[in-house]
Amino acid sequence: MISLADIEAARARIGPYVRRTPVLTSERLNDEAGARLFFKCENLQHIGAFKARGAANAVFTLSDAAAAKGVATHSSGNHAAAVARAAALRGIPAYIVMPEGAARPKAAQVERLGGRITWCAPTLAAREETAARIVAETGAAMIHPYDNPDVMAGQGTAALELLEDAPDLDVVIAPIGGGGLISGVATAVKALRPAARVIGAEPAGADDAARSFAAGRLIPLAETHTIADGLRASLSQSTLDHIRRGVDQVATVSEAGIALAMRALWEALKVIVEPSAAVPYAALREGRADVRGQRVGIILTGGNADLDHLPWSASS
Amino acid sequence: MISLADIEAARARIGPYVRRTPVLTSERLNDEAGARLFFKCENLQHIGAFKARGAANAVFTLSDAAAAKGVATHSSGNHAAAVARAAALRGIPAYIVMPEGAARPKAAQVERLGGRITWCAPTLAAREETAARIVAETGAAMIHPYDNPDVMAGQGTAALELLEDAPDLDVVIAPIGGGGLISGVATAVKALRPAARVIGAEPAGADDAARSFAAGRLIPLAETHTIADGLRASLSQSTLDHIRRGVDQVATVSEAGIALAMRALWEALKVIVEPSAAVPYAALREGRADVRGQRVGIILTGGNADLDHLPWSASS
Repeated sequence: MISLADIEAARARIGPYVRRTPVLTSERLNDEAGARLFFKCENLQHIGAFKARGAANAVFTLSDAAAAKGVATHSSGNHAAAVARAAALRGIPAYIVMPEGAARPKAAQVERLGGRITWCAPTLAAREETAARIVAETGAAMIHPYDNPDVMAGQGTAALELLEDAPDLDVVIAPIGGGGLISGVATAVKALRPAARVIGAEPAGADDAARSFAAGRLIPLAETHTIADGLRASLSQSTLDHIRRGVDQVATVSEAGIALAMRALWEALKVIVEPSAAVPYAALREGRADVRGQRVGIILTGGNADLDHLPWSASS
Repeated sequence: MISLADIEAARARIGPYVRRTPVLTSERLNDEAGARLFFKCENLQHIGAFKARGAANAVFTLSDAAAAKGVATHSSGNHAAAVARAAALRGIPAYIVMPEGAARPKAAQVERLGGRITWCAPTLAAREETAARIVAETGAAMIHPYDNPDVMAGQGTAALELLEDAPDLDVVIAPIGGGGLISGVATAVKALRPAARVIGAEPAGADDAARSFAAGRLIPLAETHTIADGLRASLSQSTLDHIRRGVDQVATVSEAGIALAMRALWEALKVIVEPSAAVPYAALREGRADVRGQRVGIILTGGNADLDHLPWSASS
């Protein structure tokens, strides 16, 4: 299990490589919510997502000898770009396994950052096998997108900054996909502000965290149905353990609610959030979290939305 | 003519009422430009535009006796919301003349901020007549969107902050509509950093500033053709005088270039900019300003884009 000390060490380690992102507020959204909302803008982070934090921490934690062999991961999303960027900053190779069918802009971004892409069939088994083969061949260090304590600690640094810029929070809400972010966030919040509640939010169509949290054991899903592509992964035993330790509630939201929340955030904050990043605010809008009169921190996790296919556009 | 002292006084006056907006950077945009770009995010300002600054300065400059009668303006855009907001903050009435056909969201925003809207025919003559009648009836102080030294000084405060957060700039680029922003920006930049160039950018389809700057006298346009709806106004004698004193170059850009620049900014910075706000970056992309190897400040003026009609969407 990670601790506050791990997150503070991560912060010192990755400080030169990540942005201190701004915290935005909106009088209009406050009025509508009957609460004071503080949006931590990780969509404005390098590579457009908080994933830059965890990947940088994992890459810069490696010994020089281990790092020299490079790093590997499998991802179709923001974690791939984050690992490629962190490896480039350290001057080591990044081997990225991507499933065929992954969005071209994502692959182009990985290549622009110097990542070496290996394509595989679009199944979890193929991704894991291909990554394992590359690790065996190269000796690269595998950097899992969330089932890795250095990654979790890195993601938790976003909460340290949020608590500094928006003190006295009563609640912190973050999305749950594989659970790496919420594990780090909950650890930081419960250590620094034990009275604050931590709420995880996920799509009802990918609600393995809600089910696992309620059952007290891992209940992975065979399939998911959500536009929040960053939240389709299932928890690991480690992230579930962190969630059971530090999260007070897991809220689920509808697909329509995600789209409405996404648009409301674009209009009020003038920042681009991807569907996954709108899920915590969707939980507020759908009444899944009681925050009236409270001070609420919300992690806006990423801004890599597909501008050609917006969920409110008739043509998408 | 306004001075640096006016802008510094404005900053102290409006400090409690405006945001210190962040300055964003992008490694990718830097690489593409061969320069270091610093984007001052006035799209993240209250009401989604720098106009909050000038309106607040003009409203809070009024004596208590004058203010008690309220303020008036005619505008279909961001200035209307800015005046309504500033008046609400001071607790005085705001009489806003809007042309029929103005975007409904803009009118709704003005009403939400407590502005009292009077509709008129969509001509400049009707707007001015209607506003003059309201001023005669109420004694309200007219707050022109740009032909007003307090407004210019207020807009210039954005440049003070930019020069603090991004020191040693070689160039500052801002859009030109009626010229209120560039008048304030040029005054601040030339006072604090005389060696820096100031470039104004406007659509080729609304190029009265380029024509007037070249001719040395006002050349207003009978009609304009641009998606940059915030830049259709013509200079006043006063803003032209400020431009001739402090601006080194006026660059013009194509309509296609505005749309491409807008999308590139959304993708790289993850913030929403309206078409007018993309015009300075469009000038860079179209090679209208030579900035290679330099440090370039760019004012992103607003984020009130119409999310249902994006210029790259086939359906718009």
